[in-house]
Amino acid sequence: MNRHSLWLCAVVFAQANRLLGESALVFQTDFGLKDGAVSAMKGVAHEVDPRLKQYDITHEIPAYNVWEAGYRLKQTTPYWPAGTVFVNVVDPGVGTERRAVVARTKDGHFIVTPDNGTLTFLAESPGLEEVRVIDIARQRRRGSEASYTFHGRDVFAYVGARLASGQLAFADVGSVATSDVVKIPYTHAELHDGTLTGPIPVLDPQYGNVWSGIPKPLVDRLGLKPGDILRYRIRHSGKVVLSGEAPFVETFGKVPKGSPLLFLNSLLDLSLAVNQGNFAAKYHIQSGPEWSLEVTRKQ
Amino acid sequence: MNRHSLWLCAVVFAQANRLLGESALVFQTDFGLKDGAVSAMKGVAHEVDPRLKQYDITHEIPAYNVWEAGYRLKQTTPYWPAGTVFVNVVDPGVGTERRAVVARTKDGHFIVTPDNGTLTFLAESPGLEEVRVIDIARQRRRGSEASYTFHGRDVFAYVGARLASGQLAFADVGSVATSDVVKIPYTHAELHDGTLTGPIPVLDPQYGNVWSGIPKPLVDRLGLKPGDILRYRIRHSGKVVLSGEAPFVETFGKVPKGSPLLFLNSLLDLSLAVNQGNFAAKYHIQSGPEWSLEVTRKQ
Amino acid sequence: MNRHSLWLCAVVFAQANRLLGESALVFQTDFGLKDGAVSAMKGVAHEVDPRLKQYDITHEIPAYNVWEAGYRLKQTTPYWPAGTVFVNVVDPGVGTERRAVVARTKDGHFIVTPDNGTLTFLAESPGLEEVRVIDIARQRRRGSEASYTFHGRDVFAYVGARLASGQLAFADVGSVATSDVVKIPYTHAELHDGTLTGPIPVLDPQYGNVWSGIPKPLVDRLGLKPGDILRYRIRHSGKVVLSGEAPFVETFGKVPKGSPLLFLNSLLDLSLAVNQGNFAAKYHIQSGPEWSLEVTRKQ
Repeated sequence: MNRHSLWLCAVVFAQANRLLGESALVFQTDFGLKDGAVSAMKGVAHEVDPRLKQYDITHEIPAYNVWEAGYRLKQTTPYWPAGTVFVNVVDPGVGTERRAVVARTKDGHFIVTPDNGTLTFLAESPGLEEVRVIDIARQRRRGSEASYTFHGRDVFAYVGARLASGQLAFADVGSVATSDVVKIPYTHAELHDGTLTGPIPVLDPQYGNVWSGIPKPLVDRLGLKPGDILRYRIRHSGKVVLSGEAPFVETFGKVPKGSPLLFLNSLLDLSLAVNQGNFAAKYHIQSGPEWSLEVTRKQ
Repeated sequence: MNRHSLWLCAVVFAQANRLLGESALVFQTDFGLKDGAVSAMKGVAHEVDPRLKQYDITHEIPAYNVWEAGYRLKQTTPYWPAGTVFVNVVDPGVGTERRAVVARTKDGHFIVTPDNGTLTFLAESPGLEEVRVIDIARQRRRGSEASYTFHGRDVFAYVGARLASGQLAFADVGSVATSDVVKIPYTHAELHDGTLTGPIPVLDPQYGNVWSGIPKPLVDRLGLKPGDILRYRIRHSGKVVLSGEAPFVETFGKVPKGSPLLFLNSLLDLSLAVNQGNFAAKYHIQSGPEWSLEVTRKQ
Repeated sequence: MNRHSLWLCAVVFAQANRLLGESALVFQTDFGLKDGAVSAMKGVAHEVDPRLKQYDITHEIPAYNVWEAGYRLKQTTPYWPAGTVFVNVVDPGVGTERRAVVARTKDGHFIVTPDNGTLTFLAESPGLEEVRVIDIARQRRRGSEASYTFHGRDVFAYVGARLASGQLAFADVGSVATSDVVKIPYTHAELHDGTLTGPIPVLDPQYGNVWSGIPKPLVDRLGLKPGDILRYRIRHSGKVVLSGEAPFVETFGKVPKGSPLLFLNSLLDLSLAVNQGNFAAKYHIQSGPEWSLEVTRKQ
């Protein structure tokens, strides 16, 4: 093969890489989908690089709820490949002194987000490898300087798209953060004297299942087996608001329709449900840093 | 043209095919869009093949409603090209003995779904060419063996993405089903003694239109013409819950705002509506296998 | 480099262009996302050209609300690159004599839409360069002739996809419109004797902020500075339904939680909000052509 043929091969493969467009950009907001705000962000990202594959986690985070935004990131990011860029915009402090950051997690994801507590869960697991503060004066959509209230479009979507497309290196986002990210305090999961305790970070909103932050390894340490009957207590700000008992089962079909059960949810965390019913609505249970669950084996 | 130039052409076209990424993967669930469940499925599929074009039918199927899931597939699949892979996850029996299958329809679509009644309508039209039972022990996301409650992510999205990308041949999904798919019984459309009878499979939820399963060919056999006045009766479990009359017209604008009409909907099935109003809400009509419509020409 | 090598280069780049798939097709409807209607449109577009990048503005335009559809286009289109094709289907008059058109805006976007008032805002800014009436008899999905009620799928999605893919030139859509597009009358923004007046075109539905159509240049002409206290009056059909005062600030965080503020929204239009609250719900304010806002500086 002669020299210009080799050169042609190089052209072919360069085109291939240019065309590949395999990078994923994944959005999460509390904007809802009734207006044009999410679409404006996607248009900005499409203009940066039309080959990006743009996806969503949800745009139905309850307004201003940075706790739930953080949990949805923890729930979802593990199922996306390393290198995926997430743009999170739940940003009640837009325009104030809160930092805008990009965090690189220990499993290779990039999270573009206001630093307002959203990184609470990812900072614990898988952990953050490096956090950089976005240099907003330089890293923003051209012509957006007069806008103070929509960093989602003007900063976060723009920076996320440039990162995902390879136009902007992580090191060029801004300087390394000199202080830790903001974290929201909450009760962490533990096993003590035969009692499992842990937070109720979120509900499964479609079905009303109550998810805890008690993971399978802790459940295994209590030695639970399918069919064991458990006693549970749910607390709100320390006060017991519900107690009862239910079997620990592998699947919903193991209990009659309408009966309660404890099971390992899709994240392999202990959870409460009613088979084909809505546990949270039936018993008026909500979620957040002030909610917790206790479980013991029935004697 | 010499030999290595031909070889280069082959490289160009192979790259073209590799890069084409023209395959569509279309999701439907009852998960809603408030949490990260749909996104986890899309992340799994994106990791299988980032070139897939991922789309949605809806994620707002009422919880556990396999009947409506089946109808939405019937409504939507004809507008997608042959070869499109649909992943349907309305799966109240996840973790029980219900089969996980891939059905190849007679018009060349692939439906990846629990076998729980969802295939009722597609089995009638266009018909299923072949159904294979997914070998769940082998065909699942690596590392997902400990999870029992989210086959949507661990099995259906993964298998659907591998099928759509060409990494998995239909024949390798699992063995051919040895029994028929699960079907939900309902009253089928017929014309008898001048009366059209048929099911009310779903509502048009945005506008409150009442869709029947009475197709245009049957309407034509009754000899209806635009402007004819019809009498209608709606039954629930056999009992008449509403009767009235309305003109059969081509478009909503043919009757005054607020007036009822009968028309052929976007699937060319006979339907009831109120012009710029909500028929279902106004008259408390719902849909499902226990609902039916009768129509006769006014004498 | 010899001649067949040049020819090979041409092949490479032609493939590149064919594969590039950089065209965006952006949908907006009042269909909601509970059924298969939006998906049917996307399937039609995917079949026309699987390389298109399909996006959405919203499918939650209130049913039949062409005013809001028009405003969401005005809000969103500036953030998409020139050449983007928008398909808008809020179409209460489908099947009547209303025209189906494609408008090319002065900033190079294409809007495929029924001509029913939706173009009110874009016709003012950036302005329409040319409007063509779709020749529906020729430019529709093959086999769709018997369907009268779903031009979104049969005409608009199909024509939009062919335009975006380059299969259909704008000049071949149909003949140039011989009359102006339909416009909805409303009170335009003005500054008169120290009073700013303007419409309330929409709410920010997620947060309940009240958006006006009073743009930053008019606000600047009144000489407002951050911290100035303003008096505002909201009128419905000319009658004052709410009056009060609030500071003009750059960001929400400048007032206490629960307090009202005036600010420039993400389009740089004057808007009313309650910090971390819902102004529209609290004071029963809605939006549309019959709503208006007046603002003066507090003496």
